Amino acid sequence: MREHAGIDFWFTMGSTYTYLSVMRVEDAARSAGIPVRWRVFASVRALTGATQVPFIEGTPKFRYMWRDIERRAQRLGVPCRLPVPYPSPAALDANRIALIGIRDGWGPAYVRAAYQRWFEFGDANGTERNSRVALAACGRNFDAVVARASSTDVIDELEAQTAEARQGGVFGSPTFVVGKELFWGDDHLEDAIAWADSAR
Amino acid sequence: MREHAGIDFWFTMGSTYTYLSVMRVEDAARSAGIPVRWRVFASVRALTGATQVPFIEGTPKFRYMWRDIERRAQRLGVPCRLPVPYPSPAALDANRIALIGIRDGWGPAYVRAAYQRWFEFGDANGTERNSRVALAACGRNFDAVVARASSTDVIDELEAQTAEARQGGVFGSPTFVVGKELFWGDDHLEDAIAWADSAR
Repeated sequence: MREHAGIDFWFTMGSTYTYLSVMRVEDAARSAGIPVRWRVFASVRALTGATQVPFIEGTPKFRYMWRDIERRAQRLGVPCRLPVPYPSPAALDANRIALIGIRDGWGPAYVRAAYQRWFEFGDANGTERNSRVALAACGRNFDAVVARASSTDVIDELEAQTAEARQGGVFGSPTFVVGKELFWGDDHLEDAIAWADSAR
Repeated sequence: MREHAGIDFWFTMGSTYTYLSVMRVEDAARSAGIPVRWRVFASVRALTGATQVPFIEGTPKFRYMWRDIERRAQRLGVPCRLPVPYPSPAALDANRIALIGIRDGWGPAYVRAAYQRWFEFGDANGTERNSRVALAACGRNFDAVVARASSTDVIDELEAQTAEARQGGVFGSPTFVVGKELFWGDDHLEDAIAWADSAR
């Protein structure tokens, strides 16, 4: 057996571009035989200390972001109806649920369902409507998961993961980490896979 | 004869990632039979009103930028010795020279020579040492070009081009524009070429 270099897929559920990655990272990595670990962090602000979200409404960069995601989603065959509400007021709650899901094995399914709800129906990640739909899609009980999501150990673990991301140099979502190499942005997923492949 | 949709290649000479594009845009577009127009603007700040440069020394994003450029340059076979001085104190002068060069037909050659001087020897774009070397490489007289670069018509035209970029939604360098579609970042050059190709 050969050792496989894996990819740590760092994300936060307030991020827009992360939609593209959550919908394709598993298939893309599986095709290449590269294992993926889903790793969630609290927010870009928690990593960088930024006082603003990455995309400010009314700016050219904001308009570009939606159009760029739309074009890329069309090419990938990923559905979306843009623009959607941003920033999400409840992304932190979604990150805590994702953390529980990753622990329990239904994390990727929840994250995909939540993002699809946000990008197809406009219910932002972490809002009650989003979480009810996304957790139901994973066969999880909303009330039980939400109760766990506010427990001290979940809050503490998300903080610890966020600290680990920061120490590893992560500053945005999505970021793909292969060993000590960072690849930032959905459009660098292929580069990360190629790097992991050549590092075997 | 078929109509070809062309690419407007918008750039500013204070940008780091733009090095990768200036070294490859001509070949990449020529291979696809897509014409390229080189279009220079004054600065990212002049487009967006940003009060900071895009990459702040000491931040994780700053370190990532150099490593990302280094990896991409290696893959493209483009030489560089990183990091290089940034931001360039004299990028505006380089933009004015580029504007003259684009008018006169030696613009791309000058821009490539200037970037190579910056990224291989550390003389930032627009500094006297850089401009002397880069203009000599194009067979131009340094004193004559520098005198023209401070003329009113050059200053005015760079401002007009910058206004045109802003009105077109450009907010960073490099940006490839095909019709009304923007593609931001060196890593989106292939997307721009594909778009231009399908728009024929």
